[in-house]
Amino acid sequence: MFEKKVTSPAARSVVQRRGVERRRAILDAAEALLGEQGYEAATLKAVGERAGIPVASMYHYFPDRHEVDAELLRRHLEAVEERVTAALGQSDLPTLRDAVDAVIDPMRDYFRAHRSCVELWFAGRSEMVIDLVRQFDAVQADRFWRLLVERGLLPSGTPRFVAQYAFEVGNRLFDTAFRAAPTGDDTAIDEARRMVTAYLETYAV
Amino acid sequence: MFEKKVTSPAARSVVQRRGVERRRAILDAAEALLGEQGYEAATLKAVGERAGIPVASMYHYFPDRHEVDAELLRRHLEAVEERVTAALGQSDLPTLRDAVDAVIDPMRDYFRAHRSCVELWFAGRSEMVIDLVRQFDAVQADRFWRLLVERGLLPSGTPRFVAQYAFEVGNRLFDTAFRAAPTGDDTAIDEARRMVTAYLETYAV
Repeated sequence: MFEKKVTSPAARSVVQRRGVERRRAILDAAEALLGEQGYEAATLKAVGERAGIPVASMYHYFPDRHEVDAELLRRHLEAVEERVTAALGQSDLPTLRDAVDAVIDPMRDYFRAHRSCVELWFAGRSEMVIDLVRQFDAVQADRFWRLLVERGLLPSGTPRFVAQYAFEVGNRLFDTAFRAAPTGDDTAIDEARRMVTAYLETYAV
Repeated sequence: MFEKKVTSPAARSVVQRRGVERRRAILDAAEALLGEQGYEAATLKAVGERAGIPVASMYHYFPDRHEVDAELLRRHLEAVEERVTAALGQSDLPTLRDAVDAVIDPMRDYFRAHRSCVELWFAGRSEMVIDLVRQFDAVQADRFWRLLVERGLLPSGTPRFVAQYAFEVGNRLFDTAFRAAPTGDDTAIDEARRMVTAYLETYAV
């Protein structure tokens, strides 16, 4: 007990702040490396070097690269959610197609502008990453279902799984789109709009 | 040159026949193990034991388990193709929905009856397996496109990629269906029919 190192609250807060800053620096370095050189290049060692943090210290912040990937993906997911929420919050979404576009457009734009996000989102790099994307899709699909019902675009009796399948399929065609071209092949993205809209319309009648 | 072992044609043919038989025994054993105990259980060692072939000899037929998986999947793909071809060969496919069902029903039945096929088809176990499924889908989609045009269910100007996306999406929803239940969740399979049909119908007009 008496040997316990005593640190003042002020000293503790400096340490905590440095921890937060270093974690952010690591995520920024990972984002840059993934974006410039792709998944294979962004090892824990390479990310540490880019962030100017000794490898030995890296393990203090992230036990392995999968944790870095997952944390960076969480940051991207928050940003995507913000943009989709803003687009869906618009007052005028007169048709199902408008609502579908309000999800697809901000996602397409975000992926185009953030290759590091594409590198993590679609390739199923780890169980953690796969779970994050699945959870994100499930939550977004449920919000989308509620919005479509509230706006009177779908009858309230529409099963919730309809939105879940719509998101799954959209996700798959986005995967195809960004595998076909780094900027996201427009044909695949437009067919995603078309297919999901046609599917939702079968429930609108 | 003079040291070369001379074998008679008859002896060579015995060796060849034994090779064919052993490869088939290995594939049968892999199919049984995958079906009964799942992917992790069907190691090269376990498959060899089941087939009654010493591990040292196994490498003579298959360098690793991925080659066994790929060869077994090829066998499944041939069987699936045969059944889909038979269903599509029926004279009466009056609607797009009938044509979609003629692909989905035999695939669903085959997957239900062959868990080893499901174990390999959907989980993306190796690059070889992923490529085989992708090639299969691409070839089947192209045949499907031709059939729909020949039968007058789609106008001849319909882009070929429409059938490709239809197969991709069907594949994804089958994956969901067989992840949800070992026998293939009927809701997911029925939504696959509904979504793909609705999508194709947007081109029929």
